[in-house]
Amino acid sequence: MDKKAAKFEGVFPILVTPFDEKDQVDHDSLRKVVQFMVQIGVQGVTVLGVLGEANRMVDSDRKGIIKTVVEAAQGKIPVVAGTSHTGTASTAALSVMAQEQGASAVMIAPHKEPVSNQQKIFEMYKHVSDSISIPIVVQDHPASTQVQMPVDLLVRLVEEVEQVGCIKEEATPTGQKLTALFEGMQSRSVPVLVGLGALYGFFDLQRGAAGFNTGFAFPEVLLAMVRAAGQGNMDKLFELYTRFLPLIVYEQQPGLAVRKEIYRLRGLIAHNRVRHPGATIDPKTSEQLAGLLQRILPGKDLTKPISL
Amino acid sequence: MDKKAAKFEGVFPILVTPFDEKDQVDHDSLRKVVQFMVQIGVQGVTVLGVLGEANRMVDSDRKGIIKTVVEAAQGKIPVVAGTSHTGTASTAALSVMAQEQGASAVMIAPHKEPVSNQQKIFEMYKHVSDSISIPIVVQDHPASTQVQMPVDLLVRLVEEVEQVGCIKEEATPTGQKLTALFEGMQSRSVPVLVGLGALYGFFDLQRGAAGFNTGFAFPEVLLAMVRAAGQGNMDKLFELYTRFLPLIVYEQQPGLAVRKEIYRLRGLIAHNRVRHPGATIDPKTSEQLAGLLQRILPGKDLTKPISL
Amino acid sequence: MDKKAAKFEGVFPILVTPFDEKDQVDHDSLRKVVQFMVQIGVQGVTVLGVLGEANRMVDSDRKGIIKTVVEAAQGKIPVVAGTSHTGTASTAALSVMAQEQGASAVMIAPHKEPVSNQQKIFEMYKHVSDSISIPIVVQDHPASTQVQMPVDLLVRLVEEVEQVGCIKEEATPTGQKLTALFEGMQSRSVPVLVGLGALYGFFDLQRGAAGFNTGFAFPEVLLAMVRAAGQGNMDKLFELYTRFLPLIVYEQQPGLAVRKEIYRLRGLIAHNRVRHPGATIDPKTSEQLAGLLQRILPGKDLTKPISL
Amino acid sequence: MDKKAAKFEGVFPILVTPFDEKDQVDHDSLRKVVQFMVQIGVQGVTVLGVLGEANRMVDSDRKGIIKTVVEAAQGKIPVVAGTSHTGTASTAALSVMAQEQGASAVMIAPHKEPVSNQQKIFEMYKHVSDSISIPIVVQDHPASTQVQMPVDLLVRLVEEVEQVGCIKEEATPTGQKLTALFEGMQSRSVPVLVGLGALYGFFDLQRGAAGFNTGFAFPEVLLAMVRAAGQGNMDKLFELYTRFLPLIVYEQQPGLAVRKEIYRLRGLIAHNRVRHPGATIDPKTSEQLAGLLQRILPGKDLTKPISL
Repeated sequence: MDKKAAKFEGVFPILVTPFDEKDQVDHDSLRKVVQFMVQIGVQGVTVLGVLGEANRMVDSDRKGIIKTVVEAAQGKIPVVAGTSHTGTASTAALSVMAQEQGASAVMIAPHKEPVSNQQKIFEMYKHVSDSISIPIVVQDHPASTQVQMPVDLLVRLVEEVEQVGCIKEEATPTGQKLTALFEGMQSRSVPVLVGLGALYGFFDLQRGAAGFNTGFAFPEVLLAMVRAAGQGNMDKLFELYTRFLPLIVYEQQPGLAVRKEIYRLRGLIAHNRVRHPGATIDPKTSEQLAGLLQRILPGKDLTKPISL
Repeated sequence: MDKKAAKFEGVFPILVTPFDEKDQVDHDSLRKVVQFMVQIGVQGVTVLGVLGEANRMVDSDRKGIIKTVVEAAQGKIPVVAGTSHTGTASTAALSVMAQEQGASAVMIAPHKEPVSNQQKIFEMYKHVSDSISIPIVVQDHPASTQVQMPVDLLVRLVEEVEQVGCIKEEATPTGQKLTALFEGMQSRSVPVLVGLGALYGFFDLQRGAAGFNTGFAFPEVLLAMVRAAGQGNMDKLFELYTRFLPLIVYEQQPGLAVRKEIYRLRGLIAHNRVRHPGATIDPKTSEQLAGLLQRILPGKDLTKPISL
Repeated sequence: MDKKAAKFEGVFPILVTPFDEKDQVDHDSLRKVVQFMVQIGVQGVTVLGVLGEANRMVDSDRKGIIKTVVEAAQGKIPVVAGTSHTGTASTAALSVMAQEQGASAVMIAPHKEPVSNQQKIFEMYKHVSDSISIPIVVQDHPASTQVQMPVDLLVRLVEEVEQVGCIKEEATPTGQKLTALFEGMQSRSVPVLVGLGALYGFFDLQRGAAGFNTGFAFPEVLLAMVRAAGQGNMDKLFELYTRFLPLIVYEQQPGLAVRKEIYRLRGLIAHNRVRHPGATIDPKTSEQLAGLLQRILPGKDLTKPISL
Repeated sequence: MDKKAAKFEGVFPILVTPFDEKDQVDHDSLRKVVQFMVQIGVQGVTVLGVLGEANRMVDSDRKGIIKTVVEAAQGKIPVVAGTSHTGTASTAALSVMAQEQGASAVMIAPHKEPVSNQQKIFEMYKHVSDSISIPIVVQDHPASTQVQMPVDLLVRLVEEVEQVGCIKEEATPTGQKLTALFEGMQSRSVPVLVGLGALYGFFDLQRGAAGFNTGFAFPEVLLAMVRAAGQGNMDKLFELYTRFLPLIVYEQQPGLAVRKEIYRLRGLIAHNRVRHPGATIDPKTSEQLAGLLQRILPGKDLTKPISL
């Protein structure tokens, strides 16, 4: 798959990383997740994001996960690999490794330094770009990074770092930042995907987002939303958004417990375990989630793709 | 109004503080807001919360606001006054002032110290309690305070500080904390209200929250939700929640711009101004909001109470 | 005293705020502190800094303190008043109050907003400047504010806000920032004072700092250091710095307990109390401090000015 | 070298990690550093601490560094390896790797979670302890971790996790915490080393610290201080501390630039480079440092061990 392969439009689910009872990566489940994504027709998948618990991995975990996902994707969809690291040389090294394993792109967020320095952030992306030949997704997610990237910096990255192929915009309020980005990108422009579990999905698509790069456990819904937006059918888009919003809201709460439980209920992962020190779902929350799913998707077989 | 007056069940809107074009408190608008709240039948109002921009006030602003609101409430509903401060003696002094101005209760959040110390937080509440005779609402909102109050500490406050009359629980995920609180409060129990713009409203009421203490600009909706929950009509509750959730989500974004614009559209405040350095709504967001309101409340006269 | 009175060169001690056993401001001790400062020949004093526990004050405390200090100074030295506040209108209001009480200047630090915004910080200083006629000391102390002010912003403030009369530079490493400031201030330049308890005193003076604006409890030492630097006597400066550095290091530890204990030992304040939730000195630390003072100033009567 | 080998008393320098001009680990310099440490008689060395830029390493860097250092130490001194990671399974995996490479102990700091949870921190140490057979140094350094470990938690770790062999205490004010630890450790007690560049060295030894575990670039000074303390010669200790304090203060400023420059001046590392995005020393600071060294160690050949 060549560098152009990842178009960064549509839906790129952030994959969870399944773990077994011994807290080790469960590659069988991971393959199943990828196959499901191919089946429902997503435009690509992203591994090793925040929601993939990338921060709880050693490098060999990372490598094994990329390998499995690339193999399972069989070249049918591009695989984006998160390669953020607190050091520039290490970010580059992980990105080279991802490329070698067959990733079609890397996703990188800046990291917090004692004194924030936009020039250093620019240099980091530039250095990584010089080390690989696949595109870079610039992730702007201050809630996890504690780094604020002003529009000026993002525009500079797009204009001066050729391999930047996409911005993943997750700085709230996302609407204003999307509009500012679209106004700011003049000499060169890249698609902007949004995340945050699709919490602001309707509003972000209305503002011109190219799609979703997030972990909502029913990507079929996101696909339908992007389709509706593409057809200019805002009534349909709003209807879909409203119908699933209680679930979107419930799922995007801090922690990964709810999302992993849904993946389990969908038959895609064998265990709902969140890697320590993360917390796995508790019985009361599990029960509340089951009730919610019953309200939103009454009588549906969750293990099958949902048609909308 | 005696100390028992505030029952802390139902809906206690957090009032915005209206400002004029010179960034000064607009008392006329404030009166209008209070009268509207009395008219629609809320159980009380809270002034000088985070959403009331309390942190941008000098003490004389605070005093003037409490005075105006107490007068406008005419004893028909209790007035809760936010009196959080970074010093214990000052929290007590502001609380005494609030009581003298006729507040029925005070709402206090802990504040971040260089080294967190639960004992000091306990002492603060105890000291304030010894200084006043009205109840205290303990606000647990780490997103604004950066202070985490474990369930143990909250239970100790309820059990050992008699004047603690309510917990306002806004630590996500709220569901788990609500359940832990209800299980923890054994020898003495107080009602727990929730906030966060009602983002988790359905789920929190399902878990046993006594109502809302938040700034959502259509408190009629919250009243209807609490009513439905009280009747055990969870279908109705879910329907209301789902219908208004896009607006709840849009409104709870960081910043107060959207909320103040809705108050303005409802004819309750003369200007949508957020006090500097806060940001007032921009045209694009204003337009998006108008579209959203049209979708959710088509053809409605927003200046009238919404019947549900 | 006119606006020019404060020259911002030399030593401007940050005064502690003495409290009595009931946690109320002890104005008698405060007067004694001011008289002592006049006696030893400092160039001015600053009240209501971080070390003055300004964040634990209600507005009437602040006003009373400024009044007392201005009266006690009897026009012999300028009085700078800290007027930082989380809202712009309130910062201006406190600054006007300080000016009315006779302060010669105000000291203002920016405050942290959810999304940092240099333009808003600039506007805040500009607005305050338009509200008063006395100079502004811009405090750059990220350790307490969590706000980073790049050199560009500081230079812009100096160049575009005429009333900015001084920068108090406390962002570590201070040396590099001092040098960058001196290189940056081209069209207009103001003196730069340093703080941090004089921890980097030798190095900062060597880099060109105009003096100290800090709370070290032996300002006589700082005066002697500034004198030595002014005479180009770097050997003398280094000797003074080295001799007192163990005490400087001990005193600048987090919390105010040590500093207040020294003030008490010097007979300047009646109680060493730190306002709640701050911590007053414990017996072991008190004993260690006594031993240290004995090593550095053997046999000296601490209640008298130290001659160096 | 068996598990008992590391006694955790005396001086355990935290080693810098030398990088070449291409930002890659310079193993030759690293060997030289270790040989120097053996020569001057330290009790052990620690690699991959904060000062070793561990956070800017991929796992293969870490492994290579431990291997080189263990080889260079030739069993003459124990090697402690930092193995902190944001995930528990990964902390264990890195610790197993360190043990396999011949490390005599591991040093682990807790890491910040969205909601702090002492039980999870305890479990992390317990899990690592169950995975290895060498001792654990518990690092308490909130300035880098943003995690506060109360004395209760530290004591519980000592009492319930047998392999905890040492606490590295760097939470300011260190004095009070040391005293509280010594009072708290009842049923089982371990040595407590201190860090922070020896900033509070005199005071910490006076309180009972067992020595230093820090990166000050003249460990000969720290050895002499520990020796003096061991002999109860507090006058000598104070003299040493005072004499070198200006350098200690200068060196412990944020960033590693100064320390690496001193190592270079001492002939131990070929380049003073700090890995990107860290900042290497600038000419003005380099000049100021040279002047300082000349004042404190006039005419000395820095490449030779300093005799004191």
